[in-house]
Amino acid sequence: MLQAGSRMTLVLGGARSGKSAYAEALIEAAPAPWTYCATAQAFDDEMVERIALHRARRPEGWVTRDVPMALPEAVAAAPGPVLVDCLTLWLTNLILAEADVGAAAEALRAACRAAPGPVVLVGNEVGLGIVPENALARRFRDAAGRLHQQLAQDCDRVVFMVAGLPMIVKGQA
Amino acid sequence: MLQAGSRMTLVLGGARSGKSAYAEALIEAAPAPWTYCATAQAFDDEMVERIALHRARRPEGWVTRDVPMALPEAVAAAPGPVLVDCLTLWLTNLILAEADVGAAAEALRAACRAAPGPVVLVGNEVGLGIVPENALARRFRDAAGRLHQQLAQDCDRVVFMVAGLPMIVKGQA
Amino acid sequence: MLQAGSRMTLVLGGARSGKSAYAEALIEAAPAPWTYCATAQAFDDEMVERIALHRARRPEGWVTRDVPMALPEAVAAAPGPVLVDCLTLWLTNLILAEADVGAAAEALRAACRAAPGPVVLVGNEVGLGIVPENALARRFRDAAGRLHQQLAQDCDRVVFMVAGLPMIVKGQA
Repeated sequence: MLQAGSRMTLVLGGARSGKSAYAEALIEAAPAPWTYCATAQAFDDEMVERIALHRARRPEGWVTRDVPMALPEAVAAAPGPVLVDCLTLWLTNLILAEADVGAAAEALRAACRAAPGPVVLVGNEVGLGIVPENALARRFRDAAGRLHQQLAQDCDRVVFMVAGLPMIVKGQA
Repeated sequence: MLQAGSRMTLVLGGARSGKSAYAEALIEAAPAPWTYCATAQAFDDEMVERIALHRARRPEGWVTRDVPMALPEAVAAAPGPVLVDCLTLWLTNLILAEADVGAAAEALRAACRAAPGPVVLVGNEVGLGIVPENALARRFRDAAGRLHQQLAQDCDRVVFMVAGLPMIVKGQA
Repeated sequence: MLQAGSRMTLVLGGARSGKSAYAEALIEAAPAPWTYCATAQAFDDEMVERIALHRARRPEGWVTRDVPMALPEAVAAAPGPVLVDCLTLWLTNLILAEADVGAAAEALRAACRAAPGPVVLVGNEVGLGIVPENALARRFRDAAGRLHQQLAQDCDRVVFMVAGLPMIVKGQA
């Protein structure tokens, strides 16, 4: 659970590895109000369903901010503990909008450092399969890897989720 | 090797990460007879060859049960240590047959809990690449992730294989 | 950093997980001259750019050997610490040339054992996504997994990189 002094946590893992549930439990160990920065955009029925499932799991005490792009601003404005779920969709939105990914990453890092309470960032590890044939997919996974490395430098705790269980990469459980 | 008190182990990892050899060694550390629950179906020559290679590695003392679908029943009927190799093909068979995956997962969990000897379950981690373009593949990897999380809760030991070596996720080596 | 007695290290990880930077730092902790065995072949602009980026990061003191195929010979001929970056492209080159992968792997293992200084091998973990539809891709990831397992047996240190951070699989950091 959230240890005193754990300012910034990166929760990485594959699809359905229990990242969100673990991240939410970390935040809920700190005093409310909890800010949930949701980066998903519901383009189709599958995404609508995934978003609804995620929302249904969260108890009272959460304030949700829908920020497909304006994530740094939302993190900076959060009054207490803040959860970012997830970096992967935010990055997807930035790339599809042809935004400056490097500048956005720097803005997010600055916002995390300035946040008044603990920050937990969730990201999908997408670089452990065969090299994608699709050039956009290759560009995306390179950008995701770079973003995770930058944030991991700033974090005092990094975990890699496997089957709902955290493996500690940096810091303490 | 198989420690006293290790009732149920989940061995996860990627393709050719040494999952099966490690899982077999765990089982062979307990007294025979050893039951091998094989879930592969040989649809093509490539699968025929993979199955033959796996069989050739196993020494005397193993009884093989071919259970593409009826895995819970085979686990429940095993007289001693039982190896499930693998969850991934079982899940594939269930999905292709349009079976009730949730009910099957519950039946498997119950069978594992009731088994008289140690149980070792092998599964492929398939969720760490780029999101598949194929909707069935996305559904499959979601189902695999959920199944692994459920079983990991029940297990007293979970390992993640890298290059033939176990990383301990839960419990002890 | 490179501990006394660490003879052979395998650095695995996904795309943009910080494998190369970590491996270079390990080598640079030992006395120069450092040999960089580069296996990349620049077939297209994307690869030209990736290779240039990798080179630009390396300081003085490195001697680069371009060995798309003749990797064992280059490792054997290195006068001091040697970095192999990366196994994955070497294997790709071997398979595309229809070379004997098993014999090449044995030659590499022998060269690593005979090397006068520390050896650090970098490889991409590619087996943790959905099974590829492409038969060549399946054959490639099987070959990669086998090669990593063989080399990991010989190594006294194996690390799995996540977001630029090493997780120790075997040996000590």
